[in-house]
Amino acid sequence: MAFELTKEYIDQIKVALESGEKAGILSEVNELHPADIAEVFDNISIEEGRSLYPFLNPEIASDVLIEMDEDVRESFLASLDPEEIAKSFIENMDSDDAADMLQELPDRKKDDVISKIVDSEQASDIVDLLHYPEDSAGGLMAKELIKVNVGWSIMKCVREMRKQAEDIQNVYTIYVIDDREKLVGTLSLKRLLLAPTDSKVKDLFYQEVLSVKAYEKSEEVAAIMEKYDLVALPVVDELDRLIGRITIDDIVDVIKEEADKDYQMASGISESVDSGDSVRVLTRARLPWLLVGLLGGILGALVISQYEGQLEIHPEMALFIPLIAAMGGNVGVQSSAIIVQGLANNSLGFDSLFARLGKEFLVALLNGIVCSVLILGYTLVFEDSINLAAAVSVALILVIVFAGLFGTFVPLMLDKYKIDPALATGPFITTMNDIVGLFIYFGIGHLMYNLF
Amino acid sequence: MAFELTKEYIDQIKVALESGEKAGILSEVNELHPADIAEVFDNISIEEGRSLYPFLNPEIASDVLIEMDEDVRESFLASLDPEEIAKSFIENMDSDDAADMLQELPDRKKDDVISKIVDSEQASDIVDLLHYPEDSAGGLMAKELIKVNVGWSIMKCVREMRKQAEDIQNVYTIYVIDDREKLVGTLSLKRLLLAPTDSKVKDLFYQEVLSVKAYEKSEEVAAIMEKYDLVALPVVDELDRLIGRITIDDIVDVIKEEADKDYQMASGISESVDSGDSVRVLTRARLPWLLVGLLGGILGALVISQYEGQLEIHPEMALFIPLIAAMGGNVGVQSSAIIVQGLANNSLGFDSLFARLGKEFLVALLNGIVCSVLILGYTLVFEDSINLAAAVSVALILVIVFAGLFGTFVPLMLDKYKIDPALATGPFITTMNDIVGLFIYFGIGHLMYNLF
Repeated sequence: MAFELTKEYIDQIKVALESGEKAGILSEVNELHPADIAEVFDNISIEEGRSLYPFLNPEIASDVLIEMDEDVRESFLASLDPEEIAKSFIENMDSDDAADMLQELPDRKKDDVISKIVDSEQASDIVDLLHYPEDSAGGLMAKELIKVNVGWSIMKCVREMRKQAEDIQNVYTIYVIDDREKLVGTLSLKRLLLAPTDSKVKDLFYQEVLSVKAYEKSEEVAAIMEKYDLVALPVVDELDRLIGRITIDDIVDVIKEEADKDYQMASGISESVDSGDSVRVLTRARLPWLLVGLLGGILGALVISQYEGQLEIHPEMALFIPLIAAMGGNVGVQSSAIIVQGLANNSLGFDSLFARLGKEFLVALLNGIVCSVLILGYTLVFEDSINLAAAVSVALILVIVFAGLFGTFVPLMLDKYKIDPALATGPFITTMNDIVGLFIYFGIGHLMYNLF
Repeated sequence: MAFELTKEYIDQIKVALESGEKAGILSEVNELHPADIAEVFDNISIEEGRSLYPFLNPEIASDVLIEMDEDVRESFLASLDPEEIAKSFIENMDSDDAADMLQELPDRKKDDVISKIVDSEQASDIVDLLHYPEDSAGGLMAKELIKVNVGWSIMKCVREMRKQAEDIQNVYTIYVIDDREKLVGTLSLKRLLLAPTDSKVKDLFYQEVLSVKAYEKSEEVAAIMEKYDLVALPVVDELDRLIGRITIDDIVDVIKEEADKDYQMASGISESVDSGDSVRVLTRARLPWLLVGLLGGILGALVISQYEGQLEIHPEMALFIPLIAAMGGNVGVQSSAIIVQGLANNSLGFDSLFARLGKEFLVALLNGIVCSVLILGYTLVFEDSINLAAAVSVALILVIVFAGLFGTFVPLMLDKYKIDPALATGPFITTMNDIVGLFIYFGIGHLMYNLF
């Protein structure tokens, strides 16, 4: 079944490369799936990769390149000259993969590589694709597809398809166009299989076909393919002419990236990074939110300093500062996460802001009451001061309710003004709730000590 | 293009249902895509749904049911009797969808529905599928597929495929089996299209085919399909006999669910919930982590109470408690998120624990130095006490480094012992770092005030 890459295997490859042996493990690499070979490249040095790639069959080499980790591919391509890239890799690639790969090269090198592509039709397809932004339907689509004219007979259709199919790895759908190249429908392979040979395309095709415009955002495309369970989606230009198709495997990557991005945002990481990135990149991705937290901490210190007199008289109030801050932060993260996820999955429905806040108020109040009763019990038993017990438990319930409402409100507002609501999760909401929580705690404390 | 559901449209439907009008908008609903009709059901009451569904065409009704929100479907099915469910919905469903839906019914009702299924072959397929755990390859697969014998001619092959294809919505791959039903390869539609009619299956088929065993975990299946960019994956039993196939649209759901689960875990939500769930469900999902936070807060109070004497003399130390706690929490969440995501994406490579901690040490140290210098500057300018400035800045750098290492170590250890590493994110790591951070802060403070 699926291949499991081991450290031992990598070590064997390294030894074989170093000893310069030609047969054996190095040529056997070709028997692995390209995705597995790519993993091997991810785990050896660029120089080792350069010595390994000549052992790969040409069709396999280009698939391997596509599957490599982005950072590894970047360094690997930087070590090759433009002609090598065009000859060894681009020639066997689908237009969309080639365009994606070229997108990652520096502008100068990109042009050099394109000028070395032998197949002029492929070169022009790739140049076309490079015009579209990476995160648009045009940037995701491939030009390779099977299209038949609505006026054709099934015989002609099959003949033409045979010609077209030679360049295409997987045939998912046959697109039907009219004389002006306008997409008018699809013909399923199943229908074609079941059709009598004397029928015509126009009697067999489905007229209903979902398509997207080339400038549509990739998240939008992902949402459509996910919602309608599509395996392939045709892309049209402003005049509804068929110009390409997007397949689900590219969309799986978009979906993963979207989810990863929200997760990283919630964890206070500002760029898309992974553990393989350099110390510099990782530091840069993490510092911004830490500085937000630092600023929040300083503001927190300012809030507490307003009550320094009170703290001198009642130093025991300091004990529950972390509790109040942590609970406000946790509740805020929870409530904002539920909203952010609902927005991302488009599952919020049509409840009004007011209804949503009302519901969150109930949830937060219930959680607040439970936590507040527990902390009241604890403080009454283990702390001497009834004032403190009252202050902590009353403040806690207020902090939880406030944090819940705030965590619900902020992402909804951000979304309304077209700002990514995921910004509201993680360190931002935690920091805000820390500060407000301290205000509430010391304000209530002041009241409680003066009341009783 | 894609349909956008509006509140106005929902209101029109509701009015039409109430007035009992038969024509117009209600029968036009059939022109929408089933996924869109399902969204309508998600936004009207169960009673309204019951009055709406008789307007749907039978084939559409079952697709709509599959696309509904799980909670809505559950309540909707609860309102129907077993015979209605079997006749109106199950009859037009693929076996995998039918099994998934039945899985959600109470045991008694499930059996009643199965006994009402007319097509005995479908009933037996469904019963077969119900034996597999929901989160296994068997639970994801459908029985409907196209298989041909390796000994057949292409003519026989096409004839048999025509028969089989009638029951199947989309044909992705043709599976090739031997006389013992063992999966031996695949035949691509493209090859079939290009083949001369007198060729034989055994001359045309690919012998290499990835498959999974029925008991394989669904995350494992998702990882394989994602890695190898597969649209469909065959499932075999212990004797390698072909028993079903999994398609990528089911896997997209698994991928989404996995990502959502990690995100919720990081946000301190213990069950899979969405904003549409009841107040009771939402409260239950959020309370456990809040209680962890509460316990952490109490432990924090105990730590501070050890230093209450010091606080009485230097109440200004209280000012920076929230800063220390927040920074420890933030760094811990960042570093654990990077590891958890690396584990989920299988992109951690073969670095040793020691190398990983070394790298995290550098990242945390760099971030720590920047934050520490900033807070040193601030405290020197705005606070009177040099001891406080020294205590805060030294403690901050130590807390950041500790939190970074701890956040890296814990998920790696959990993973090693086969516990979900996502447990280490969110409130747990924040709470732990709060407590340790306070120890460090007051310990260093004690030192600094006694040193100078």
